[in-house]
Amino acid sequence: MGSGQPRIETRHQRAMLALLRDEGVLSRVELGERLELSRARVAVEVTRLSELGLVEAAGPSVSRGGRRSTLLRLATDLRLLGVDVGATSIGVAVTDAACEVLAHTVEDADIREGPHAILSRVLDLSEKMRAQAPGRLLAAGIGLPGPVSFAEGMPVAPPIMPGWNRFAVRDHLGGALHCPVAVDNDVNAMALGERHSGVARSLDDLVFVKIGTGIGCGLVLGGKVYRGVAGTAGDIGHIRLDEYGPACACGETGCLEAYFGGAALARDGLTLARSGRSAFLTAALAEHGRLSARDVGEAAAAGDPGAATLIRDGGRRLGQVVASLVSFINPGMVVIGGGVARLGHPLLAEVRGAVHRRSLPLATGNLPIVLSELGETAGVIGSAWSAADRAFTLSS
Amino acid sequence: MGSGQPRIETRHQRAMLALLRDEGVLSRVELGERLELSRARVAVEVTRLSELGLVEAAGPSVSRGGRRSTLLRLATDLRLLGVDVGATSIGVAVTDAACEVLAHTVEDADIREGPHAILSRVLDLSEKMRAQAPGRLLAAGIGLPGPVSFAEGMPVAPPIMPGWNRFAVRDHLGGALHCPVAVDNDVNAMALGERHSGVARSLDDLVFVKIGTGIGCGLVLGGKVYRGVAGTAGDIGHIRLDEYGPACACGETGCLEAYFGGAALARDGLTLARSGRSAFLTAALAEHGRLSARDVGEAAAAGDPGAATLIRDGGRRLGQVVASLVSFINPGMVVIGGGVARLGHPLLAEVRGAVHRRSLPLATGNLPIVLSELGETAGVIGSAWSAADRAFTLSS
Repeated sequence: MGSGQPRIETRHQRAMLALLRDEGVLSRVELGERLELSRARVAVEVTRLSELGLVEAAGPSVSRGGRRSTLLRLATDLRLLGVDVGATSIGVAVTDAACEVLAHTVEDADIREGPHAILSRVLDLSEKMRAQAPGRLLAAGIGLPGPVSFAEGMPVAPPIMPGWNRFAVRDHLGGALHCPVAVDNDVNAMALGERHSGVARSLDDLVFVKIGTGIGCGLVLGGKVYRGVAGTAGDIGHIRLDEYGPACACGETGCLEAYFGGAALARDGLTLARSGRSAFLTAALAEHGRLSARDVGEAAAAGDPGAATLIRDGGRRLGQVVASLVSFINPGMVVIGGGVARLGHPLLAEVRGAVHRRSLPLATGNLPIVLSELGETAGVIGSAWSAADRAFTLSS
Repeated sequence: MGSGQPRIETRHQRAMLALLRDEGVLSRVELGERLELSRARVAVEVTRLSELGLVEAAGPSVSRGGRRSTLLRLATDLRLLGVDVGATSIGVAVTDAACEVLAHTVEDADIREGPHAILSRVLDLSEKMRAQAPGRLLAAGIGLPGPVSFAEGMPVAPPIMPGWNRFAVRDHLGGALHCPVAVDNDVNAMALGERHSGVARSLDDLVFVKIGTGIGCGLVLGGKVYRGVAGTAGDIGHIRLDEYGPACACGETGCLEAYFGGAALARDGLTLARSGRSAFLTAALAEHGRLSARDVGEAAAAGDPGAATLIRDGGRRLGQVVASLVSFINPGMVVIGGGVARLGHPLLAEVRGAVHRRSLPLATGNLPIVLSELGETAGVIGSAWSAADRAFTLSS
């Protein structure tokens, strides 16, 4: 850790910092009540956190009959860096200590360029964003599109990330940024983002399904990201639906991702366009020279029957997998995000239909299946949240 | 709670009791190290627990250079009652406080007789077992074959338990036994049993699949039973594989249970026997007047091709569901138990094949898929373990 990092000393201090991150502003009395600490203990710990420059006063609270209690918040000059690396994009945000986004940018990128090229662009973008929202950098978090060893801070055998296997991402970024770094799977980060400030705010059991180039899912169980024993929990993109199905980018065949997701939609859209079965897509291909999942979505929205069928069939296959997930996990909410989620309600309708047909009524009775509220910022907010967690834990 | 219940006062005391239950015998020094408590604090808490009659000395420990440390264990006259109610059986055991079985019995029963009849038999059997292993009853635990509201101590909308919906099992048994009672799903109890003293000893992330009359699964994630928001997590028996599949006991069609499990095997065996496609089963039917899953297993073991096909097809369907579960959860072990698990290795081979064909290599690489070690005692041991947990938590 960089020498400029504040030294958080006790678990009470850590708990206070995490609570202020999650709640924004709290009075001393509320802090004491929520953490079951005496007034005197709160005073001692707050004094120490103020000396470290981590916590500051936010004015007097509304009186509840007795003496007024001071309001507290995390120091407004603290900054977190949240990074969201997808298969085809890099998102970088600077947030305040409560994970409110102050500056954000997204650029196209190809994860296959390898860790040196991608992380160097991450650092460039970080510098730009930090210039837009200057302050003291507390910690950074990064989400990557593959299985990650959270404890070691590196990707492990990621199927679509050539050159990244066991690359020490945490040490690399930590050395350049001089702060603690949390490395996680991108979908876990998105799930945390929606839980911190999106549609799943403060839910303890939630499933976040990302449909981007590929398909993945993040599980928050009992209030924590659940990663499994090898860090692959939620990796639904490579569940094999059919041994003799289409080839997948991972080298296997018949994976869910080989049927649906951005790459599969683009591939199937191209087939439609070339075979003349979709006038819309044939025209789009002639115009741009290539097709993306977005073109298929626009074709479907414009009433093109071939494109609509692709989305319906894909949504049904995805729904079949989500239905099993709902039966296994019995979550409080399913959130669907990622670029292809922009296909929106036709997709959602297929997934909902499949889940309600295939899962237990008791598990689906009060189950919202909804689109991500945060869209492109889910990942960077979740990474910033993890960054804060790591800063609070590490410094003990 | 009954007036004879000891009053456990602090979380240190609770942690000590749980540790002694799980480890059996520990020295004072080890207790202090494991719980990060000072020598003085350990002395105070142990004295109090001894006064309550919960902990006793087990002789001097082997010296590690310094003064000898006294060995401690839970009082040997403490008893836990573990009950395992299945669709067609009742198992009752009395254990010591470390969940070692001292007396155990299993009887046939039909869960459809309803809660009054079944719980009255549970109480009769409990009395008999307690007479065989007398002592002070600390708490009781019971597993039931359906979704349970753990917090309320009652079944909720259980598909195969007419008359049991929201019956106050905890209060009913607690009133009769004068002790705290934990009520859980039978498969959760089995998972805990295997984790405490079976094949999954001390694993934090495990999936226990029970194949009895029906099919269910218990999830231990991060060392705790994971129940989901409505208590239905792991209810894989009613995942719908095919909308137009065979009718299920739950009233739906095409559930996994409608294809495989004890009831489905008996039904399909009967069809084979009556249609003359299995000489073995035709003979068995003529002899007993009825067929069970066990007959199908014996037919398969004797080389009957029709029976072998039933088990192979069923195992493959089960394997398909377990494969999804492995992709979602990335567990450290899959344990297969329940009566139909006696079909043994041919079944295991099908499940393993399906999982390895369909799940991620990273999730299956070091994944043991094994048969339950405890067999009929998994459920009663797990229920006893939950009982102790409830006693330790409640008394605070």
